[in-house]
Amino acid sequence: MNYPKGIKKENTNNYIKFDNRGMDLENDINLTNQYYIENEIAYIYKKPTPIQVTKIDYKNNSVIIKEGFFKEPSTTDYNGLYKGKYIDFEAKETNSKTSFPLSNIHNHQINHIRNIVNNNGICFLIVRFTSFNEDYLLMGKDFINFIDNNDRKSLPLSFFKEKGHIINISYRPRLDYLKVVDEIIGGKNGK
Amino acid sequence: MNYPKGIKKENTNNYIKFDNRGMDLENDINLTNQYYIENEIAYIYKKPTPIQVTKIDYKNNSVIIKEGFFKEPSTTDYNGLYKGKYIDFEAKETNSKTSFPLSNIHNHQINHIRNIVNNNGICFLIVRFTSFNEDYLLMGKDFINFIDNNDRKSLPLSFFKEKGHIINISYRPRLDYLKVVDEIIGGKNGK
Repeated sequence: MNYPKGIKKENTNNYIKFDNRGMDLENDINLTNQYYIENEIAYIYKKPTPIQVTKIDYKNNSVIIKEGFFKEPSTTDYNGLYKGKYIDFEAKETNSKTSFPLSNIHNHQINHIRNIVNNNGICFLIVRFTSFNEDYLLMGKDFINFIDNNDRKSLPLSFFKEKGHIINISYRPRLDYLKVVDEIIGGKNGK
Repeated sequence: MNYPKGIKKENTNNYIKFDNRGMDLENDINLTNQYYIENEIAYIYKKPTPIQVTKIDYKNNSVIIKEGFFKEPSTTDYNGLYKGKYIDFEAKETNSKTSFPLSNIHNHQINHIRNIVNNNGICFLIVRFTSFNEDYLLMGKDFINFIDNNDRKSLPLSFFKEKGHIINISYRPRLDYLKVVDEIIGGKNGK
């Protein structure tokens, strides 16, 4: 497993504490992104949920949607800017103890991730295994490599342990995934 | 007015031809983005429209939205990646012959544009004056400068002529705004 430098394994015990507060992954990420904005570290935001509107009604000068459907997302949940670079990721939880089901990621999203990787953006998944409260960051290129070379319908936990990077939970920022990104990119560029 | 290098003013006559085909700005941009993707020039896509869902119904294993409202957008319409860089813009039409009403851009969007500019992303508006079929690209920093130094409720056409950049319409790509971006950024970096 690739632990980011300077983060000790013992810290994962913190999960238990925070878990009891009923925080979920989305909330943790939103708090983290708010911290990044307030401290001028990065500007990363959540995209709207795609909805197909099929019926609308006009009432007292306002438009009310009377029928609509949730569409399959064609992009990821989050994107933005970090150090002038495009950053993009999807965040998912699974209660599986052995693997992350690929049914969580739609074909359009895989295509999106592929496009980001091909265009030199920073792209990754954050996957929380809720059974043992471990958060993994998996780079888009490793994810795409797996998809292209496997017929499996899930990413095994062992793959996250081999190719992924643990993100530790903390107080502020809650889930410092950019620290992990720095380690990965820094390591790659030999900085 | 800042004409991009190599594009002659005469070409604006093409507007009349295309206008008759009933193309609107959004369609022109979608066609252009498709061209950019197909030719591996850039990966730029439209964000979903933000909707507040207030009532849902479960029927035959599917979820139907029974009530919802269009929310004020807090970001821009389009974003993506160009040459590894974050790119972000909003596209608007106006039929005014003298100015672009600022009521077209919500406060949250202004804040979004400010954040992109501050984080060194490429950010701009594309504004089409439909009365004379002129498309202007206005860089985010020029837009923010205007907002911060004026109490006016609209951006006068003269401001677009001074600070903006004409985008010419063509066959393929339809509205080559990245050519204009190249001119602006290239000019700035002295490339």
